[in-house]
Amino acid sequence: MSNNHDELVTSGDPMHPANLICSLCAKFYEKDWCLGTGGGISIKDPHTNHYFIAPSGVQKELMRPTDLFVVEGTDNNKELNVDDVTFVRKPPGLKPSDCTPLFLTCFKELDVGAVIHTHSSNAVLASLLYDDFFEISHIEQIKAMPSDKWDPVANKYINLLFQDTLRIPIIDNKNFEYELTDDLLEVCKKHPHSCAVLVRRHGIFVWGSTIAKAKIYNESIDYLLGLAIQMRQLGLPTVKPSI
Amino acid sequence: MSNNHDELVTSGDPMHPANLICSLCAKFYEKDWCLGTGGGISIKDPHTNHYFIAPSGVQKELMRPTDLFVVEGTDNNKELNVDDVTFVRKPPGLKPSDCTPLFLTCFKELDVGAVIHTHSSNAVLASLLYDDFFEISHIEQIKAMPSDKWDPVANKYINLLFQDTLRIPIIDNKNFEYELTDDLLEVCKKHPHSCAVLVRRHGIFVWGSTIAKAKIYNESIDYLLGLAIQMRQLGLPTVKPSI
Amino acid sequence: MSNNHDELVTSGDPMHPANLICSLCAKFYEKDWCLGTGGGISIKDPHTNHYFIAPSGVQKELMRPTDLFVVEGTDNNKELNVDDVTFVRKPPGLKPSDCTPLFLTCFKELDVGAVIHTHSSNAVLASLLYDDFFEISHIEQIKAMPSDKWDPVANKYINLLFQDTLRIPIIDNKNFEYELTDDLLEVCKKHPHSCAVLVRRHGIFVWGSTIAKAKIYNESIDYLLGLAIQMRQLGLPTVKPSI
Amino acid sequence: MSNNHDELVTSGDPMHPANLICSLCAKFYEKDWCLGTGGGISIKDPHTNHYFIAPSGVQKELMRPTDLFVVEGTDNNKELNVDDVTFVRKPPGLKPSDCTPLFLTCFKELDVGAVIHTHSSNAVLASLLYDDFFEISHIEQIKAMPSDKWDPVANKYINLLFQDTLRIPIIDNKNFEYELTDDLLEVCKKHPHSCAVLVRRHGIFVWGSTIAKAKIYNESIDYLLGLAIQMRQLGLPTVKPSI
Repeated sequence: MSNNHDELVTSGDPMHPANLICSLCAKFYEKDWCLGTGGGISIKDPHTNHYFIAPSGVQKELMRPTDLFVVEGTDNNKELNVDDVTFVRKPPGLKPSDCTPLFLTCFKELDVGAVIHTHSSNAVLASLLYDDFFEISHIEQIKAMPSDKWDPVANKYINLLFQDTLRIPIIDNKNFEYELTDDLLEVCKKHPHSCAVLVRRHGIFVWGSTIAKAKIYNESIDYLLGLAIQMRQLGLPTVKPSI
Repeated sequence: MSNNHDELVTSGDPMHPANLICSLCAKFYEKDWCLGTGGGISIKDPHTNHYFIAPSGVQKELMRPTDLFVVEGTDNNKELNVDDVTFVRKPPGLKPSDCTPLFLTCFKELDVGAVIHTHSSNAVLASLLYDDFFEISHIEQIKAMPSDKWDPVANKYINLLFQDTLRIPIIDNKNFEYELTDDLLEVCKKHPHSCAVLVRRHGIFVWGSTIAKAKIYNESIDYLLGLAIQMRQLGLPTVKPSI
Repeated sequence: MSNNHDELVTSGDPMHPANLICSLCAKFYEKDWCLGTGGGISIKDPHTNHYFIAPSGVQKELMRPTDLFVVEGTDNNKELNVDDVTFVRKPPGLKPSDCTPLFLTCFKELDVGAVIHTHSSNAVLASLLYDDFFEISHIEQIKAMPSDKWDPVANKYINLLFQDTLRIPIIDNKNFEYELTDDLLEVCKKHPHSCAVLVRRHGIFVWGSTIAKAKIYNESIDYLLGLAIQMRQLGLPTVKPSI
Repeated sequence: MSNNHDELVTSGDPMHPANLICSLCAKFYEKDWCLGTGGGISIKDPHTNHYFIAPSGVQKELMRPTDLFVVEGTDNNKELNVDDVTFVRKPPGLKPSDCTPLFLTCFKELDVGAVIHTHSSNAVLASLLYDDFFEISHIEQIKAMPSDKWDPVANKYINLLFQDTLRIPIIDNKNFEYELTDDLLEVCKKHPHSCAVLVRRHGIFVWGSTIAKAKIYNESIDYLLGLAIQMRQLGLPTVKPSI
């Protein structure tokens, strides 16, 4: 009991990572993003630096904080040892999410604070309608997404402008989730400012410096993917041709 | 009162079959899977071996545990007498679901722990777009579905792989629900590892060794059926041609 | 206060007509059947014979029992004086629903216990795709709908069979809701066993001997209308041709 | 604390503007109208004349009354100084919505009591299918919308009739939300009785003399936009040709 470190996942604060993973998974279930046991969320606690990870094969809308795995925290994400993970909490009878290597690689290599993975059918359909990138331009919601342009005054990357083109790389699916790690890293090296990657015939991974940002990016992308599919059905191009 | 055996359906545990049937039916109503009084769920209690069955003609989202029928438990499903059912609880003024013979036959012949039946419009539409089988391949969510390959180490059937083809048999509808029993059994004999059968112009039956598994299969199938219908509308094949 | 007869609409029983109208309107709002202030429900109390009617121009999901109008009860619906209605309760500052003459005419002439009216977009679209009747056959959900065949043993009309054709008459819309009364009555005289009429470019009226039946019919019809629209989009006929 | 004027946004009344903005934003999030941090609502308190405005970049379904900005009230909207706004409450660490200049301009120039802005995908799609105006006629829900015809007896503008044509002007999007102000005003001068303007590839602004009216208009318009897109997909014209 006490050596199971329940205190790591027990908090009255709805913004605690263990509570947030559960409440957001329940919300995402309602949006049909994690039916069956698909999808998942991983969050780095900004205070303790612990990484919280959902279990495998669990109905996401029923998940409780005590179902979560906790990986030993590292102040610097780069020091995370992905190949030999030290769990400081393992709920009995459960296995960590198959996405664990992918989630931890995102933390380590992309230096982020939260990763969301869904099986959104918009993501799957878009991955069948586009080749190497999903692309959309000239839609207001694009302004919710980060660009690669650094603002030295605000000390952050500015968001895309309305007339910019959002480009999300698409990688092909593999038989096992962990096999996606190298392809994800490779595509992220080529496109270091992307906050998402579509996995063809599978779904999407979205990340951000905080879970709030990752959630905002994920919702905005799914809205744009859904809009793009409807635009295609109506014969409208999703990237506005230059005049 | 006491001879109505209310104690069989009264429990503070949300995972008790009587509570689960009601909460899941309410959830399925929200997903438009059991509008009107359509659809239903039957669960075998893994502790008492009783079979819990919903009543006929009841609004599924309003159903209460006391509305449920209970069939005498058998340790071995094969001993279940489908033709001469012994109810240990019959709620006054109600009739058991028209699906009762079908549900009990699934328990007995397929040796399962739970059966879900819905009128999902995805199921009805797919049954009109496919002939003998609904087929889809190369979609990640397929990995939530069981295959016919036995894993002697894990002592269970492994799930489908990503590049496998999920095939769900389709049988034609009949005038009365009980008339479907023979056709369901026949198609299950030919495809003993299927966990679902589509009934053309009617809906779907899905089963599993536990209600959790049956729910996961049902949600995954409905996601795949919906995806397949959208793929058809976009002119995309649902089984990826071999290269 | 006391002369406003709040006691007529005050009850702790969720099945009291005043509570049911409010809870069902909130549910129907979630289904997009009564956005803005559209749609409404009227119920005859089977105990007091009072008729409960929603107010006009009120947001349906926010409606409270005290917002409801109550029309003097008649044991025999035929004695209802539609042209000179006696309200036994009028909430101050509100007007009765524009559908009041239509609702009361349904009670009187069709001798029903509840009437539901929605602006369902499935109903509006179907009214544009069909001429005099919406027709669908060979769908299991049709069995939730009543037929014109009397069962002398059960002392009621039996429901449609699977291979029967559900036919719902469509009348043209008029400028004012009360102007629909004559057309509704005329079409009901020709089709005395219909439990619903579609109003072209407007929505649907559905009735039943109880509010539970009217709700079941309404949900089943909306499911069938939605299915029919999808079938049309996929090039499938909604009435199966005889072989 | 006390100089932050929390009392302006603290009320037990669910109809208080600070509570309504939060509950409606949560409701609109469920309808996919303000995903990410898109959209917003501004309400003038009819009692204190204060203007309540949502903050920028906040997840709308999580917004709390204490997150709201309050602009000094003016009895006469025309006296509102849009160029030099006096905030009587600024929540620490937050910026007012990017829509603030647009919202305040609506209050001042259109003399309204509430403004709703959403990124509804129906609005975005319709803005791509129509040129200068979205137009629809002969649909019952149109009767929820105001016309330009003054009723001297009722002392108000009457609503559209069933056979009238609802016309909503469409303006082109700009890079920054405040840049839309002049175009919005210009189009409103030409169409002074419109209660909404579509912004191409962006969303919609809807207003009314009260938040209840603005909400009813917004819901009715979104229903009509959704219907129009489906009608287009089915090859049906949205304005009925005169005979």
